[in-house]
Amino acid sequence: MKNIKLVLEFDGSNFNGFQIQDGARTVQGVMEDALSKLLNEDIRVRGCSRTDAGVHSLAYVLNFKTKTTIPGDKIIYPLNIILPEDIKVKKSQEVPLDFDSRLDAKTKIYSYSFLNSKVEPVIFRNILPLEKAKLNFKAMEEGSKLFIGRHDFKAFMSMGSEVKSTIRTIFDIGLKKDNDVITITIEGDGFLYNMVRIIAGTLIFLGQGTRTIEDIKEALEKGDRLKAGKVAKAKGLTLVEVKY
Amino acid sequence: MKNIKLVLEFDGSNFNGFQIQDGARTVQGVMEDALSKLLNEDIRVRGCSRTDAGVHSLAYVLNFKTKTTIPGDKIIYPLNIILPEDIKVKKSQEVPLDFDSRLDAKTKIYSYSFLNSKVEPVIFRNILPLEKAKLNFKAMEEGSKLFIGRHDFKAFMSMGSEVKSTIRTIFDIGLKKDNDVITITIEGDGFLYNMVRIIAGTLIFLGQGTRTIEDIKEALEKGDRLKAGKVAKAKGLTLVEVKY
Repeated sequence: MKNIKLVLEFDGSNFNGFQIQDGARTVQGVMEDALSKLLNEDIRVRGCSRTDAGVHSLAYVLNFKTKTTIPGDKIIYPLNIILPEDIKVKKSQEVPLDFDSRLDAKTKIYSYSFLNSKVEPVIFRNILPLEKAKLNFKAMEEGSKLFIGRHDFKAFMSMGSEVKSTIRTIFDIGLKKDNDVITITIEGDGFLYNMVRIIAGTLIFLGQGTRTIEDIKEALEKGDRLKAGKVAKAKGLTLVEVKY
Repeated sequence: MKNIKLVLEFDGSNFNGFQIQDGARTVQGVMEDALSKLLNEDIRVRGCSRTDAGVHSLAYVLNFKTKTTIPGDKIIYPLNIILPEDIKVKKSQEVPLDFDSRLDAKTKIYSYSFLNSKVEPVIFRNILPLEKAKLNFKAMEEGSKLFIGRHDFKAFMSMGSEVKSTIRTIFDIGLKKDNDVITITIEGDGFLYNMVRIIAGTLIFLGQGTRTIEDIKEALEKGDRLKAGKVAKAKGLTLVEVKY
């Protein structure tokens, strides 16, 4: 028995997230189908995180057990031939049998990008939501720093997930502006349901003056969801890297 | 009568270039249909350049004459509602009656991007061709400088176009590398048929050692097409700006 780790890039536009669901096209479903066909075994994959419909990844990590004799670093080639164009393997390798792509993840890096303009994006319409409001970028940069550190992110979580603790640590957060595209990059030890999208939505509200620095401080201190912002649209979110 | 200038962004993936053709979806065809419907007149547009199928634009410029009473800077709004998602107007304005988007263009800036990797791009598959060969980026940077200035670009033109002169001036050319994506940006007073794509293909050949600095010098001096490189794939090319 071997344990194989894969690093995947996928365009989330036509995936209903990672987790397998009856009647929906999911990353897990497509990968298990392709691997089971290729390796002629019933393959179950273990993913590094759930992702919502529309969310993208440059380096999603999963692992699976197999009896195949194909060397781990060679599985990438036949696999990419049978995978559709919106999901490809960037790296395959054999890892120790006890490696677990979810439990062993130390930090994850996400980026959230959007177009701040009056006109819809065209070339990048699958990955850039539009935000028409005039934004104070300096205020957003200042506000973003408040998230760094160990906090209770209860106010930055959507309903519908069960977690033991809502405390997470953000190691770094950065904003950049390239023409009219604003990108928020955030690294943390873990993220609650919709946490990155709510942080992005809160910074957008801060930039347009709908929230203040004090609101964000209160949201972090008192866990008041209403002091935080909207859930920014899924298509702006990309999982950039998982560190082990 | 008014003369209106439009600046367009389009994703070239599903356009058969700019110029109107029977039975093919073209930028000119889509724009003339939309404008004629919106303004209830028979509108003919004049574009700043021909573009090949698959080529993109962030700021294609065209102009057209109209009797409409809608102010030039307001045409953008109803027009964007009826235009499909792969082409949108970024700016509309009234210009002097003698403005001609093609003849008045002083310089054009194009970018050519590709992914230098072993694995096909996924999220950016519509705009990034794949180049698998290992490339010497420093050699490409050095070679690119040879194009700057006034030269006879006969060796950097595909057959099938009639031009009075093959002499053009390149004002600037820059290469950058961001992760595995290489982008060549080039500004000139005009470009021959496939000229940017052949310059890109030549720099790729130089990077992989299939051409030398001497070959490029010879191509520029003697006009020998065989000393230049391949025509790099259309989808990597984007018209970035037209200056007037």
